[in-house]
Amino acid sequence: MTAGRPRRAAAALVAGAMAIGLASVSDLGAKPVTVADLLAESPAADWRVPNPEDTLYLELPHGRVVIELASHVVPQHAANIKALARAHYFDGLAIIRVQDNYVVQWDDESHRRPLPPSVRPSVEFTADANAAVRFEALPDHDLYAKEVGFLDGFPAGRDPSTHTVWLAHCYGMVGAGRDDPAESTGAEMYAVIGNAPRQLDRNVALVGRVLKGMELLSTLPRGSGEMGFYVAAEPPVPISSVRVASDVPEAERTPIQVLRTDSATFRSVLDQRRERREPWFKHNPGAIDLCNVPLPVRAVPSASR
Amino acid sequence: MTAGRPRRAAAALVAGAMAIGLASVSDLGAKPVTVADLLAESPAADWRVPNPEDTLYLELPHGRVVIELASHVVPQHAANIKALARAHYFDGLAIIRVQDNYVVQWDDESHRRPLPPSVRPSVEFTADANAAVRFEALPDHDLYAKEVGFLDGFPAGRDPSTHTVWLAHCYGMVGAGRDDPAESTGAEMYAVIGNAPRQLDRNVALVGRVLKGMELLSTLPRGSGEMGFYVAAEPPVPISSVRVASDVPEAERTPIQVLRTDSATFRSVLDQRRERREPWFKHNPGAIDLCNVPLPVRAVPSASR
Repeated sequence: MTAGRPRRAAAALVAGAMAIGLASVSDLGAKPVTVADLLAESPAADWRVPNPEDTLYLELPHGRVVIELASHVVPQHAANIKALARAHYFDGLAIIRVQDNYVVQWDDESHRRPLPPSVRPSVEFTADANAAVRFEALPDHDLYAKEVGFLDGFPAGRDPSTHTVWLAHCYGMVGAGRDDPAESTGAEMYAVIGNAPRQLDRNVALVGRVLKGMELLSTLPRGSGEMGFYVAAEPPVPISSVRVASDVPEAERTPIQVLRTDSATFRSVLDQRRERREPWFKHNPGAIDLCNVPLPVRAVPSASR
Repeated sequence: MTAGRPRRAAAALVAGAMAIGLASVSDLGAKPVTVADLLAESPAADWRVPNPEDTLYLELPHGRVVIELASHVVPQHAANIKALARAHYFDGLAIIRVQDNYVVQWDDESHRRPLPPSVRPSVEFTADANAAVRFEALPDHDLYAKEVGFLDGFPAGRDPSTHTVWLAHCYGMVGAGRDDPAESTGAEMYAVIGNAPRQLDRNVALVGRVLKGMELLSTLPRGSGEMGFYVAAEPPVPISSVRVASDVPEAERTPIQVLRTDSATFRSVLDQRRERREPWFKHNPGAIDLCNVPLPVRAVPSASR
């Protein structure tokens, strides 16, 4: 707390940063490797470009939210959501609920819009049996799942006794809201904007995650109604459109790359985050929670555009 | 997803709500008890009024954030922060950093303001030895601590082999930022606005938690600078003042009550949240993470004002 300390040093708290986007870690001692170092040195092959056919653009008045659909985990929901987007179902709807430390939700509150005929309600709380071989297990413990890891790049849990795999409710994950009975279509959607509500795992179909623009959702005014619904005096946030990226002219797409969870760089990032060797850390956590694992995203480097 | 479903049913996702403030849970089946039921039926003795001498009002242009200081856990920091508030140290400063899914930070970025002479840097990452007897253990597992529970109403971890107790970085917790070396005064403060960054536990002095007004911090525009610092084009959010509640005329105080963590009602809330019996839940989580435990806060019922 010296008066003359440099501004960057004053920000040292960030050494533990867990941004959903690009992990930005200040290099405090120049010796221990940081996530920023690892990403800077990563080979191009450790990054993947999300399939535009599985990428949604949620266009809000204040910017674009890029969502990657987990199409191989929830094929029916992904097909539904793409059909809904292509039928312009979401265009002109609004974000109707923002509950602090929980979720942002959008849907057709009036229930006036017809669903395209191909849209079928389904229950995809867990992945199908073929997903088990794609699951990349982590050695880390978890309170809500016997095993955790990644499935197609998304945080996931697994029960080895039943070979069941499911996506996990981490910050930035996107799901299909539902009533009771349990089935859903994807016409009602939500994004997690708070501490991971893992009690929802296996209770709702998670359909993907926000790759970019999370702050456009997380900063929305909280609704003052019950459960964060906007009341009459609080105008809902309009949705300009939801589009499948492959339907958007290439020049208007958001160039983006995601670090592959099966890459050596990702394993190094995890190692760095479990054992904190930066001098700022006086106590080494020696552990990491699934939902604290950074999932780096970056703009496509200009050379490869 | 029936077209005519009532609006409340459409909001059923909230059954898993983990708001930091008043837990608002819709009564879905009228049979299984909800957190709302438990709170409605709770005896007045299960609630406590935070000591105004340990309560801070962070006054922002858009409202008041109420913070309870953990004065018995971090006595030096609490004394420092109250001395700073009473010297008007924070008045006219600004929130200078908002990093998505991480922290909001405020301090004297220019380092021009003198600290009151009583302010002493200290290292209070863990509570003193007397805290062990006040620790209320939970049976739940944790990834970052051998034991978890509550200390003076704040989420906490404990190492039974060393009898060490410390506060935990849950959503809404407030800490004293620091550089390296490790000591801090409280002149630089932050609040957690994202998924619990538990890797910071025992690395920073947590000084309290936000009881009310969390949404005034969590919705602030994210800074576009490195680590969420506001850049020149982004005017920092001014702090009107930070005051100790006991210095504020009683009529201007925020009447507030906090559910006692040593109450029967709180134990019932925890039981309800570990085992989800509402019909909406198809998979019972059977577990709860320390940072998903609701810590109910309410306005003082008018009868008791």
